Amino acid sequence: MGKGRLEAFSDGVIAIIITIMVLELKVPHGEDPAVLQPLLPVLLSYILSFVYVGIYWNNHHHMLHTVQQVKGSVLWANLHLLFWLSLFPVTTGWMGENDFAPAPTALYGAVLLMAAIAYYILQRVVIASQGEHSLLAKAVGRDLKGKVSPLLYAAAIPLAFWNPWLSNGLYIAVALIWLIPDRRIERVLGR
Amino acid sequence: MGKGRLEAFSDGVIAIIITIMVLELKVPHGEDPAVLQPLLPVLLSYILSFVYVGIYWNNHHHMLHTVQQVKGSVLWANLHLLFWLSLFPVTTGWMGENDFAPAPTALYGAVLLMAAIAYYILQRVVIASQGEHSLLAKAVGRDLKGKVSPLLYAAAIPLAFWNPWLSNGLYIAVALIWLIPDRRIERVLGR
Amino acid sequence: MGKGRLEAFSDGVIAIIITIMVLELKVPHGEDPAVLQPLLPVLLSYILSFVYVGIYWNNHHHMLHTVQQVKGSVLWANLHLLFWLSLFPVTTGWMGENDFAPAPTALYGAVLLMAAIAYYILQRVVIASQGEHSLLAKAVGRDLKGKVSPLLYAAAIPLAFWNPWLSNGLYIAVALIWLIPDRRIERVLGR
Amino acid sequence: MGKGRLEAFSDGVIAIIITIMVLELKVPHGEDPAVLQPLLPVLLSYILSFVYVGIYWNNHHHMLHTVQQVKGSVLWANLHLLFWLSLFPVTTGWMGENDFAPAPTALYGAVLLMAAIAYYILQRVVIASQGEHSLLAKAVGRDLKGKVSPLLYAAAIPLAFWNPWLSNGLYIAVALIWLIPDRRIERVLGR
Repeated sequence: MGKGRLEAFSDGVIAIIITIMVLELKVPHGEDPAVLQPLLPVLLSYILSFVYVGIYWNNHHHMLHTVQQVKGSVLWANLHLLFWLSLFPVTTGWMGENDFAPAPTALYGAVLLMAAIAYYILQRVVIASQGEHSLLAKAVGRDLKGKVSPLLYAAAIPLAFWNPWLSNGLYIAVALIWLIPDRRIERVLGR
Repeated sequence: MGKGRLEAFSDGVIAIIITIMVLELKVPHGEDPAVLQPLLPVLLSYILSFVYVGIYWNNHHHMLHTVQQVKGSVLWANLHLLFWLSLFPVTTGWMGENDFAPAPTALYGAVLLMAAIAYYILQRVVIASQGEHSLLAKAVGRDLKGKVSPLLYAAAIPLAFWNPWLSNGLYIAVALIWLIPDRRIERVLGR
Repeated sequence: MGKGRLEAFSDGVIAIIITIMVLELKVPHGEDPAVLQPLLPVLLSYILSFVYVGIYWNNHHHMLHTVQQVKGSVLWANLHLLFWLSLFPVTTGWMGENDFAPAPTALYGAVLLMAAIAYYILQRVVIASQGEHSLLAKAVGRDLKGKVSPLLYAAAIPLAFWNPWLSNGLYIAVALIWLIPDRRIERVLGR
Repeated sequence: MGKGRLEAFSDGVIAIIITIMVLELKVPHGEDPAVLQPLLPVLLSYILSFVYVGIYWNNHHHMLHTVQQVKGSVLWANLHLLFWLSLFPVTTGWMGENDFAPAPTALYGAVLLMAAIAYYILQRVVIASQGEHSLLAKAVGRDLKGKVSPLLYAAAIPLAFWNPWLSNGLYIAVALIWLIPDRRIERVLGR
């Protein structure tokens, strides 16, 4: 079973998620530039989520690059990841429209955490399907980034009720950690 | 006529359906966590439909794997299936927003039933187009799952007016039956 | 310049158009089955447009099958067709929500007419790009269907102000004429 | 790392952007043709943006045609371009709903400007990744169009507060300049 359709379907869903998020940037009423002001936090939360979805897409791209064959378990682990990514628009919108208030910031982190766990599961399932000479296992190595990120999200969730800006700082920090695409995979593949 | 575009178009439509359903999870007003509570049944109905659409996508993926050439009849049987799948967002939203009330639960089942029938028709059309040595016919065999599911949906529809939770239990049960991807096809293809 | 991306982009836009139309089927308020009644004309207009978009997708599929190379003129003629198709959701919604009233029915026909003209232009541009031994020209032949359809749409537009059901009857009639996929192309290609 | 998924993902996002813009053409209430009148500026702004997105898609198509391998930097420069394109629907809607008023017209130009800069950056990143014998560098040459367009947008932004029709005239003029697809690339590739 080739990986072509898995890639195409994932690309489709991720492309739609990234675009649907922009629908929360509702067209303001009135032609006065002042009507743009309440859109600012919505725009900021959109940028953060756009970067996160971009990171997931890039790393997903790299991960599937190491895959030859796709088993049923990979299809479902992939759908599980897409499920959590599909909740980004609503949590992004809730956080942006409430100006990064505590509860929306915590929920945003919870969905980030679940997506990170789903990505980790997908990675394990792919490695298991590749057997002991797994290219992906070699590429991922100790997977420091993959292990630290969920810890930071988990810390950010309760922090949000104390100071949501700290939590958002953590979300930005994790995004920056990942913005460098997974060079480990490029290295192992020798490209 | 190759099957590439048929797959790509179906992937596109299914990817959009799965993502449009999430639009029913409307961004709540207010930053109080309590505003999330009315979203819970909407989230549950979204999860059920996400799993169903995932099942259709996976099995569609497996089914087309056995196809070499696509005739006009297959294109139209496929569009017919996509039509019924395209009604999932509205019936999912209606059921979720009304807390799994009888009529919305029955309508949800009716659309599930029509999609199951459309899938069955597509399967027959593909088998007919493959002729007597049809790979798909061999893979599907007696097609127990394909025959039992519509019966269970048909039973769930009137049941909804008596006890909608029974109907929803049946929808979950059928989903669980199908969650195992169609190993029969993998077996026949010897992979 | 290969045709792969042209097909992929067109598939994407058409898949989104066909799915966005379903957003007009708004989730009704209340759990009473009676709330579904105002959705009926919206559903009927959705079915009509779904079939029309399906016809365009199928015939587009067949047309591009005869193409090897894509020139800039084909890209733009294709975007022109996609533009008119992109207006289907709004005209479908207007007609459905107003129960097939005269003006919405006429506008629906006007967009059908423009899409038919755009399809005809695309066909001419493809034929011109293929030169005198054009496969598509051979396949299309006298193109009776392509010439009669715009005439019927043009007749249906003024008729809508007299009796919109006659116009809708014509729209259905044209759809039925086209429902048979373009066997001419299959014939010429010898498949 | 092949360019296939980059193209597919970009096509998906651009296809969704072009289609989401049409959602601003809200289905009017009432069956009287007069209700269409307020839609006219929305339609005009939609046409302008449709042409712009079409131009970006066509030129993106041509640009990637010269690419063999995709590095991480190209992926991110591409996402940066898609980010600015994703803001087209909201600025188009704001301009259309306010009848081409000064502030919305200026913001529309600002997003056009940012998209042009993002396209220029992507072009530089691709050229840098191709090394000194870059096909794209040869094709682009002095890149007069790419350098003049941002200047015209930058001029149009302040002009909008004096006379928004002048700004819109400039936007149309730039679109016309680009409507001719990048024949330079076709020339260099010898097709």
